Amino acid sequence: MNTDELVELGQQLRVDSVRAAAAAGSGHPTSSMSAADLMAVLLANHLRYDFDRPDHPGNDRFILSKGHASPLMYSVFKAAGALDDDELLTFRKLGSRLEGHPTPRRLPWVETATGSLGQGLPVGVGIALSGKRLERADYRVWVVCGDSELAEGSVWEAAEHAGHERLDNLVAIVDVNRLGQRGPTRHGHDLDAYARRFRAFDWHTIEVDGHDVDAIDRAYGEAVSTLGQPTAILARTLKGKGVEGVEDREGLHGKPLPDADEAIAQLGGKRDLVVQVHQPPGDRALRSVPTGPGVDLPRWERGGDPTATRDAYGKALAALGTARDDIVALDGEVGDSTRAEYFAKEHPDRYFECYIAEQQMVAAAVGLAARGWVPYASSFAAFLSRAYDFVRMASVSGAGINLAGSHAGVAIGQDGPSQMGLEDLAMFRAVHDSTVLYPCDANQTARLVAETAGLDGIRYLRTSRGATPVIYGPDEEFPIGGSKVLRSSGEDRLTVVAAGVTVPEALAAADALDREGIRVRVIDLYSVKPVDRATLRQAAEDTGCLVTVEDHHPEGGLGDAVLDAFLDGRPVPRLVRLAVRTMPGSASPEEQLHAAGIDAESIAASVRLLVEQAIVR
Amino acid sequence: MNTDELVELGQQLRVDSVRAAAAAGSGHPTSSMSAADLMAVLLANHLRYDFDRPDHPGNDRFILSKGHASPLMYSVFKAAGALDDDELLTFRKLGSRLEGHPTPRRLPWVETATGSLGQGLPVGVGIALSGKRLERADYRVWVVCGDSELAEGSVWEAAEHAGHERLDNLVAIVDVNRLGQRGPTRHGHDLDAYARRFRAFDWHTIEVDGHDVDAIDRAYGEAVSTLGQPTAILARTLKGKGVEGVEDREGLHGKPLPDADEAIAQLGGKRDLVVQVHQPPGDRALRSVPTGPGVDLPRWERGGDPTATRDAYGKALAALGTARDDIVALDGEVGDSTRAEYFAKEHPDRYFECYIAEQQMVAAAVGLAARGWVPYASSFAAFLSRAYDFVRMASVSGAGINLAGSHAGVAIGQDGPSQMGLEDLAMFRAVHDSTVLYPCDANQTARLVAETAGLDGIRYLRTSRGATPVIYGPDEEFPIGGSKVLRSSGEDRLTVVAAGVTVPEALAAADALDREGIRVRVIDLYSVKPVDRATLRQAAEDTGCLVTVEDHHPEGGLGDAVLDAFLDGRPVPRLVRLAVRTMPGSASPEEQLHAAGIDAESIAASVRLLVEQAIVR
Repeated sequence: MNTDELVELGQQLRVDSVRAAAAAGSGHPTSSMSAADLMAVLLANHLRYDFDRPDHPGNDRFILSKGHASPLMYSVFKAAGALDDDELLTFRKLGSRLEGHPTPRRLPWVETATGSLGQGLPVGVGIALSGKRLERADYRVWVVCGDSELAEGSVWEAAEHAGHERLDNLVAIVDVNRLGQRGPTRHGHDLDAYARRFRAFDWHTIEVDGHDVDAIDRAYGEAVSTLGQPTAILARTLKGKGVEGVEDREGLHGKPLPDADEAIAQLGGKRDLVVQVHQPPGDRALRSVPTGPGVDLPRWERGGDPTATRDAYGKALAALGTARDDIVALDGEVGDSTRAEYFAKEHPDRYFECYIAEQQMVAAAVGLAARGWVPYASSFAAFLSRAYDFVRMASVSGAGINLAGSHAGVAIGQDGPSQMGLEDLAMFRAVHDSTVLYPCDANQTARLVAETAGLDGIRYLRTSRGATPVIYGPDEEFPIGGSKVLRSSGEDRLTVVAAGVTVPEALAAADALDREGIRVRVIDLYSVKPVDRATLRQAAEDTGCLVTVEDHHPEGGLGDAVLDAFLDGRPVPRLVRLAVRTMPGSASPEEQLHAAGIDAESIAASVRLLVEQAIVR
Repeated sequence: MNTDELVELGQQLRVDSVRAAAAAGSGHPTSSMSAADLMAVLLANHLRYDFDRPDHPGNDRFILSKGHASPLMYSVFKAAGALDDDELLTFRKLGSRLEGHPTPRRLPWVETATGSLGQGLPVGVGIALSGKRLERADYRVWVVCGDSELAEGSVWEAAEHAGHERLDNLVAIVDVNRLGQRGPTRHGHDLDAYARRFRAFDWHTIEVDGHDVDAIDRAYGEAVSTLGQPTAILARTLKGKGVEGVEDREGLHGKPLPDADEAIAQLGGKRDLVVQVHQPPGDRALRSVPTGPGVDLPRWERGGDPTATRDAYGKALAALGTARDDIVALDGEVGDSTRAEYFAKEHPDRYFECYIAEQQMVAAAVGLAARGWVPYASSFAAFLSRAYDFVRMASVSGAGINLAGSHAGVAIGQDGPSQMGLEDLAMFRAVHDSTVLYPCDANQTARLVAETAGLDGIRYLRTSRGATPVIYGPDEEFPIGGSKVLRSSGEDRLTVVAAGVTVPEALAAADALDREGIRVRVIDLYSVKPVDRATLRQAAEDTGCLVTVEDHHPEGGLGDAVLDAFLDGRPVPRLVRLAVRTMPGSASPEEQLHAAGIDAESIAASVRLLVEQAIVR
C-alpha cells in the first residue's frame, strides 16, 4: 500500500476500535488508536499470513502483548477479511469470540492469551526459538508491546534471552504513547531511554514517529533486513491519536470515547478497506509428525536401590525424547538438580537453557507449545512460584505444557525453607483444567512423565530430592486420576492417604501399627488432580476416616484434594490432616519429616491417638 | 585495615566458609570464596554497623542476595565478633540459627530472607527508599548479588526503580565468578556486559578485580561518593578462589570442598581476626512512634448506596494513614482501579508508585517493613500472582506486609479471564501464617483494613470491582477469625457459606427459598484464614450440610477453607461446593456470576435440588 492508503487504513482501524468499544460500552479504544498506524503498515506491507490457514507453517506470528488494545487487533482481523463488521460489534459480549483480551481459545489467529502485561514478548521469544532452532522456518515474530509494560522484569528476561540467542526473526514494536493506566510512564516520550535499555541487551533499535507511515514502513524494512540481532522499534505515538480532547490526555484509559459519533466523524467516518495480506512463502511440508518407536522407558527393579524421583524424571524424559521428536525440554539453570540434564545430553538440539529466569522459561514453553511442540520445563518446585502469573495465563491460552518441580517439601533437608516447595500443590491445583501429579517412586515417575505428554492443559509433576524405595514394578500402570491401594484388609480402622515422600512413611507406619494389631488402609494418591474419587469413596465407606499426610502446607494440597470425592452432598468421612504447619529451618531430611509430624513415627502416633480416643471404629 | 590485613581477613572468611560447610557436610563454600575479598573490605573499611544494636537507626544495611553464600555471611558475623567459632560450626544443623540460607527470623543482623535468587536487590531498593524518602537517614544499603541471578527480571525491575529514584544510598556489588550452578553463565567474565545493562538503567558502574583489595577499597569509596545515582560494582572473581583444583572449576557448586583440611592449609590455616566495625554515625532519635488520634474510618449507611469494596479499601487506607504515620502504601500503576490513589492524594510522601512491576512492589513492601513501616501494597488480585515467589519469601522472612488484590473473580465482567483473580485465595491461604480476608461490604472492608495493620505475617485482603450493598452498619465489628451469621432459624435445612460478592447472592437466594418455605442459614465467612471454627461447627451440628459459594476456582478457596473446622477427626457435615469451574469469557458481571453458577438463582436451584433429593434434612 502507498502512503495515502496506509493513512486511510490506520484511520479505519481507529474508527473500528472506537466503534467496537462504543458497542461494548467498555474497552480500550485510546490504547488502540496510538498503535493503529503501526498495525496498518504491518498488516498491509510486511506481515505474511494466510488468514484462511492460521496453521500454515510459513505464517508470520503476531502477538499483541498489550492485550487491552484488543479492539485494534479485532479491527485488523476485520481489515484482513477474517471477520465481518457484525462480529466486530459483538466485542466483549457474552458468547462472542472477541473477548476483552484476546485468547487463542476463541480465535485461531491469536498465538497466545495476553492481558497480563509483560508476557507477549517472552512468549514471542519462545516462538522465535522454535522458528530458528527447531523448525528452521523463515517466519518472523512481530510483538506489539506497550511502553508501560516495559517496567515488568519479564520483558528484560525476554530481552536477555533473545539478545543472547541472536533471534533476528523477532521484532518488538513498542507503542510509546507515554501514558499508562493511571498517568504518565516513567520515561514519557523519551524513546532513547527504552532504546538504550534494549541495546544494552544486544538488540538492534530503531526510533521512529509512530504516526508517520512511511517512516514506520522503513523501520519494518530495516528490522527485516537486520541479521544476527532481534530488533526493537521504539515508536513515539499519542494515546487517542486523531480525536480532539482525547488525544494525549490523561484519565481516558480503558474507557469508550465520550462521544463516539463525533470521534468517528473527526477520523473521517467508517471505511471498509480490505487488505490483501501477503501470503507466506512456499507451502513447505509441515514438520514431520512424530513417529518413532514406542517409548522405551527406564526400568527399576522393585525393591532395588532407592532412587530419587527427580532422577527418574530426567531419565524418562530423555527416553521420551528418543521416542518422540516433538518433545522439547527447558530448565532454569538447575538441570543438574532437576535432572533435565539427562535430556540435554541426549537431545541438545531440543533443549533450551533458560538460565535463572523462570518467567521466561514458562513463557518459552508456552511459545513452543503454540508451535506444536510438547514442552517439559523444570526448576525447583519453590521457584516455579516465580512464574505463577505465566502459568495462569498459559491456562487462559489453553496451552499444553508440562512443568516439573523438584526439591519439593521439607524432605530436601538442610537447604532450608527458601528452597522448599510447600505451596506448589495449592498453586497448581487452583489452575483451571490442570493435572497435578506427585509420584513416590522411580517407576511411577517414569510412567507419569510419559503419560502427561498426551494430556491437555497445564500438567504439573512434583519430584523429590532424596532417594525413595522402589515400591512398584516397572510394568505397573498409573492412569491419570487413579491411585494405588497399598495396604488393605477387612479390619481397616482408618485410611492413610499419602503421596510422594510420605508414601514410604505411611507404609512403615502401617506395618508398625499392624504389629500392634491396628490395621490401616494405605492409599498412594499419586494423582492429586484429578483424584480417584471411587477409591476414596470406598475407603470412606469401609473405614470412615481419612488421614492425609503431605509434605506441603496444610492448605490447598493433598488434604484438600481428597475432598473432591465428597462434594456432592454425600456423607463425608472423618478427616485428619498431617501437613507442614511450622516454618522449617535447616536439618536433615529425616529430622525435617519428624519435626513436621509427617514421618512414619508421627503417622503411627496420630493413628494410635485416634484409636484410643475411639474416634475411629 | 591496610592491604595486608584485608588480604588476611579475606583468607579467614574463606577458611571459615570451608570449615562451616565441612562441618555441615553441605553448603556453598565455593560461592562464598569468590566474594570473600569483597566482604572483607566492606566489613573492615566501609560498613557502619553496631552489631550489638542491630536496630540502631543509623546502621548501614547489608543484604546477601546470593543467599546460598551463607557460610561467607556467617563467617563475616564471626569476624565482627557477633557470633563465636562454636556456633559457626553448627551451620545447617537442627536448631541452629545458621540456616542454609539466611533469615531474619533467626539472626538479628539479617535484613531479609534470601535463597530465591533475584530478590535481595529489590528488597534493598525498598530499604533504600525508606532511608531516602521516609527516614531521611544517612545509612547505606549494600547488596551482594551473584552474576547468575542477574538473569532474573526482578533484578531489572529493581534497577529501573532505583535508577529512576536516584537511590545513591544503594550499592549493588556483583560477584561475577562466571559460574552458575550447572555451568558457565551467559556472559562469563564479561564485566562490561553487566555494566552496560546497569548503565542503561541509569546506574553508575565500576568494574574491578574482585580479588584486589585495594581496588575494591577504592571502588567502595567511589560508590559512597557518587551522588544522584545508585552504583553497581562489577567484580571479576573466581569461584573457589585460592584452592587448587577447586578455583574456577565447574561441577563444584553447592558442595563442601573435596579435601577441607588441604584447602584450609592452602589458604594459610585458621585465623581469628576480629574486626572493629565502624560505628554508625550519631545515635539520632528513633523515628517517632506513631501516635495520632484513633482511626477515623469512613462510614457508610447500612442499606445506603451500594459501594465497591475497593472504594472502601482506598478510603479506609487513607484514613488509617491520617491516624498513623507508620502506614505506607504502594501500588503497581493501577491505583485508580485499586483505589490506592485515595491514599496517594492524602499522603503523597508515604506513597510509592511501583509502575507495572509487581515483584518490585512486593519486595519494596518487604524492605519498608524491615525498617518498621506498615506497608499496604495493591494491584489486581490476578496480578499479585506475578509476585508469588516474593510473597513466599516474605513469609520466610517473617515480614509483616499487607497485600490488597482488587478485581477479584468473574464478577469483574467484560474484561475477561486474564484480569480475574481466580486463584488468589488458594495462593495466599497456602502461605505460612498468612491471614486471608474477603469482605462483602464497605463498612466491613474499612474495619478489616484497620485491623490488619496490627497483625503479623502476610495479610491478604481481596476486594471487588463492582458496587455491593451495604449490609452492615458502620459500628459493627469484624474480628479476624470471625464470621457473621446473617440468616438463621431453628428450621435451617442447610447452611450457605459465602464471602465477598457471593454474600448478597446468598442472601437473595435465602430470601427466595424462605418464600417457598425452605429455611437456610447464611454465613458471611469474611475471614477465610483463619476461619471461624466454632460457628462452622455449630452450623454443621444444626444443619448437617454446608454449601460453599465462591467467586474463585474450586481448589484452595472458601470451600477448602471451611474444612479447617473439621480436621480433628470429628464428624464432617455434608459438603456442596459452588465455584467457578469453567474458563470464563467476556460478559456482564451478572451474566458471569450466572454462567459460573454462583448467583442467587444458581444457589437457590442447588438448594432445591438438595432438598428434593432428600440429601439434606
